[in-house]
Amino acid sequence: MPVSLTKESDVDVLVIGAGPAGLMCANALGRANINVRIIDQRPISVAAGQADGIQPRIMEVFQSYGMNDRLLREAAHVHMAAFYNPGPNGGIERTGRASDVTAPTARYPFEVALHQGGIESIFLDSMAAAGVTVERPVVPISIELSNNEAELKDPKSHPVKVILKHLDAVEGQGDVEVVYANFVLGADGAHSWVRRNFGIEMEGEQTDYIWGVVDLVPDTDFPDIRNRCAIHSHNGSCMIIPREGDRVRLYIQLTDKDMVDPASGRVDKNRMGPKELLAVAQKSMHPFRISTSQDVHWWTLYIIGQRVATQYSVHERVFIAGDACHTHSPKAGQGMNASMNDTHNLAWKLAYVLRGWANLSLLKTYESERRKFAQELIEFDKLFSAQFSTKPRTDEGEDGVSHEEFLKTFQTFGGFTSGIGVHYGPSALVNTTHQASASKLIIGERMLPHVFIRAADARPMELQDLLPADTRYKVIIFAGDTNNKLQLKRAKALATEMDQPHSFLKRFAQGHIGAVFDVISVTSGNKMDVDYTDMPELFRPHWSKVLVDDTDMYNRSGAGGGYEYYGIDPEGAIVIVRPDGYVGMVAPFDHLEDVTDYFASFMLTP
Amino acid sequence: MPVSLTKESDVDVLVIGAGPAGLMCANALGRANINVRIIDQRPISVAAGQADGIQPRIMEVFQSYGMNDRLLREAAHVHMAAFYNPGPNGGIERTGRASDVTAPTARYPFEVALHQGGIESIFLDSMAAAGVTVERPVVPISIELSNNEAELKDPKSHPVKVILKHLDAVEGQGDVEVVYANFVLGADGAHSWVRRNFGIEMEGEQTDYIWGVVDLVPDTDFPDIRNRCAIHSHNGSCMIIPREGDRVRLYIQLTDKDMVDPASGRVDKNRMGPKELLAVAQKSMHPFRISTSQDVHWWTLYIIGQRVATQYSVHERVFIAGDACHTHSPKAGQGMNASMNDTHNLAWKLAYVLRGWANLSLLKTYESERRKFAQELIEFDKLFSAQFSTKPRTDEGEDGVSHEEFLKTFQTFGGFTSGIGVHYGPSALVNTTHQASASKLIIGERMLPHVFIRAADARPMELQDLLPADTRYKVIIFAGDTNNKLQLKRAKALATEMDQPHSFLKRFAQGHIGAVFDVISVTSGNKMDVDYTDMPELFRPHWSKVLVDDTDMYNRSGAGGGYEYYGIDPEGAIVIVRPDGYVGMVAPFDHLEDVTDYFASFMLTP
Repeated sequence: MPVSLTKESDVDVLVIGAGPAGLMCANALGRANINVRIIDQRPISVAAGQADGIQPRIMEVFQSYGMNDRLLREAAHVHMAAFYNPGPNGGIERTGRASDVTAPTARYPFEVALHQGGIESIFLDSMAAAGVTVERPVVPISIELSNNEAELKDPKSHPVKVILKHLDAVEGQGDVEVVYANFVLGADGAHSWVRRNFGIEMEGEQTDYIWGVVDLVPDTDFPDIRNRCAIHSHNGSCMIIPREGDRVRLYIQLTDKDMVDPASGRVDKNRMGPKELLAVAQKSMHPFRISTSQDVHWWTLYIIGQRVATQYSVHERVFIAGDACHTHSPKAGQGMNASMNDTHNLAWKLAYVLRGWANLSLLKTYESERRKFAQELIEFDKLFSAQFSTKPRTDEGEDGVSHEEFLKTFQTFGGFTSGIGVHYGPSALVNTTHQASASKLIIGERMLPHVFIRAADARPMELQDLLPADTRYKVIIFAGDTNNKLQLKRAKALATEMDQPHSFLKRFAQGHIGAVFDVISVTSGNKMDVDYTDMPELFRPHWSKVLVDDTDMYNRSGAGGGYEYYGIDPEGAIVIVRPDGYVGMVAPFDHLEDVTDYFASFMLTP
Repeated sequence: MPVSLTKESDVDVLVIGAGPAGLMCANALGRANINVRIIDQRPISVAAGQADGIQPRIMEVFQSYGMNDRLLREAAHVHMAAFYNPGPNGGIERTGRASDVTAPTARYPFEVALHQGGIESIFLDSMAAAGVTVERPVVPISIELSNNEAELKDPKSHPVKVILKHLDAVEGQGDVEVVYANFVLGADGAHSWVRRNFGIEMEGEQTDYIWGVVDLVPDTDFPDIRNRCAIHSHNGSCMIIPREGDRVRLYIQLTDKDMVDPASGRVDKNRMGPKELLAVAQKSMHPFRISTSQDVHWWTLYIIGQRVATQYSVHERVFIAGDACHTHSPKAGQGMNASMNDTHNLAWKLAYVLRGWANLSLLKTYESERRKFAQELIEFDKLFSAQFSTKPRTDEGEDGVSHEEFLKTFQTFGGFTSGIGVHYGPSALVNTTHQASASKLIIGERMLPHVFIRAADARPMELQDLLPADTRYKVIIFAGDTNNKLQLKRAKALATEMDQPHSFLKRFAQGHIGAVFDVISVTSGNKMDVDYTDMPELFRPHWSKVLVDDTDMYNRSGAGGGYEYYGIDPEGAIVIVRPDGYVGMVAPFDHLEDVTDYFASFMLTP
């Protein structure tokens, strides 16, 4: 028998699972030049079906990674929602239409839908450009975290030992591998192997709602087939999500009668196939006809569960994310979005610790920020799912859900479901002391998108596009009206102070300021008179970094009025935006030391 | 000695010259599945310098070929123009700023600048996807047009014999090739070999203006270095065009003194190099400093000539385009733009004739439409160049050009220089009879961009994006308010009539309507009530083809008010848009036979 020489190696981050949560993390880390590996048990990427709805906030996040153009090009755009309820003739009728998204500040105020494989491809191509590819089919067969305190506290140690098995290896020839990782991310789905290995519990329960999902190209006379539809009929509820090309996804409510084997009395998934699902939808959608002349692309059945993991990490060395730590209904289109936002939140923090820029304790904010969100999501999901699955109110039965109630829920939670309203509470990363200096830039929420023009060339620029997810902190100096000499003097004084060795910009810079901080300045002066060369040099590391709060030359882009929209003090404000795009702090010019304290609370001096 | 077996072959279109004019043609034809070859004498594509300014209309044209996203991504955007004149202290000072483009209806109301090689790459990649590549280095060594009348009149004949020489062929082994072409395009530059072979004259003259051009990355304190600048100083005139990245192009006026050899008294190009050019610019731009710490990327010298070819074709079998038929100053940034518009105009007409859809006579409109434009361009160029090269007016010298005069010229001709105002006169392709039905869609001008929303999914769509350069005629049915039953009845009656065998839609269809015509409909009904399924089927070949003239769900895209903006009769109008994006005809519903007559004037019944 041949002696198996087991391969052993170190890695900074090992990601287990290449779904959206794992890919978001691996892509972010790969682009940040962190040593990352990502494995998946599936031999190939998913080709159809699965999750598909992308909410406004995730589009902003995709944009921050330079991936949104492709997403918008390939996906279906969903702008309108239509609501159908029982009509007088036994069939359904439209009771109203509304905007699909209720989030006035969203940069992309609509949903998009693309099959999960399409979304994963966008990540795979972005990662490949950074030299990271998914290793597959590979499964972890054991995971062990060191119990040595010193090792656990040393960010340079590799305290997690994982044994991997390469499923397609030639038998006996190095199919098993040992990896020592600084950090491991379990992004391995609802039945997470990582979670179970560390005995992390899920809190919450299963519901009685059983739903079927079917993806098809419809042949129909239904006028809202390209809108998101919530259909309540006497024959059950049904939801329509338009998809890329001519495809459509139907979510279909199933009753016990459909699913239960009369002999055994138990749910029998063999009783349902795509044909049977379509037949149920046809009954709900009467008098409109719907059928398909093509094969069904994908279908599934599921029972709604609403659960959150009790903890998101083990000693800040092993993390779980995505479906591994929260499951809920797909009604509000949240699953994949929440999963990607989990690891978007985590990735830059891992990078900071691995580079030696920040304390390990920074990683505690991953659980505190993301678990709270997941709990709120479950609460919302319970309400929404119940309303969706309940019988509609009709003239006969006054105990159902009325169109108005349902629409109200839909719109009231628009900020939440869009991901736009996500709010991280005070922590080392969220300091609300000087909120008044930028009263409408809510600290702990994502930086509000707004268009400014560049001082040097009058080109309209979305400020969010100057805040890429490149792991740098963005330091935005709202310098006031620098065409005014007194205000320019104030800005110059601030620049002088920020240039001192004790200022955060120098103290936490790694070699040079631009490694950690990206400095941008915004003047409120009139564009016809502003010279970008007037701005202090520290505030314009490049000609493209000075913005003007004024209309563009043709008044078409929505530029102008930014100081007011953000509630910026006319005497100026410093706005600190985290690498993930959330406002971390604001401060007036005369409280620079508070900004330094903010960074000192989690960052290390080189 | 080996016997050289000369290769002989047929081709539908042979394009000589792979600059912007030739590439626009080859790309358009390749994508239309026309058998096209394109040759160029240069062994590789240009890498730097040459033409660079792209005007608003060409951006719309690029967009119609799906190439504009990349152009906008790679190029510098120029929104603002700044004007400098002699100041009180001997140096220059800014006398004003203005929008760089004066063309209110432009979809892209700014200029972009990218080196010619970058622009050519966009074409090369687009062509490659259609299987067309440039053959190089290849030169034509003889060209001969048959004088057989019957052959000349038969679009299926190959009356042009061209002998090509492959410069990199191994000696004696088939380096010479004979090509028989249906059509030849000479896009071979100002010294066109094709033009000279057919003895076509250039009308016009050389001027006395000598200019130098230099591309560099500046080190400067000049505040308008990223704007387009017109600088009139006591020390000569100078123009700045920002370029991609941090590059800038300087156009520098030269005086005899700089250029003339005192010994011989003749212009001596050896007296000038990039350093000397920069020194002249430095004098003009005083008191601002400008220098470069890098190598100059490209430089040249030229004398302005303003000339137009007396004819653009020989028997509609050999054509010339671009610099081969018009030369002028680069001051107004027109050269490359006019060249690309030439062949954008020609390509679809060649496709129609080659497919047997249209008479050869259609090709006469190429010269009538494009030569008139070139003549107007020369007239404008004379005025603009003279003003630019003339000394500025100062307090001392009242005979110069004032800032106000120069600005007025700059803005008055904005529609013309942007390419937006180009107007083709009445012809077989431009029928102005029923202008009143769409009073603000000027027949003979390009279709006005405007945003509508899609009826099926409320997605805002720029109407121009539904008019791609796919060689199809676009038939836009402005159906009026189809939520109104009477108006819907009118629309249905029109659909019934258009569905008859004598209607143009059936008579000139090649097998099926969609081969030649793309039908789009636009209702003015309220979006909350419109059902796309109400539109007659003939007017909605796909769910995406029905638009609504209403605001989008978030009122951000500029959608709404399109009927008024276009001056559409509330009872409806038929708008016929040529494959190159120009309005060919409009008609009221009750004059469908006039639309049929329009097509009958140049199209053939299969």
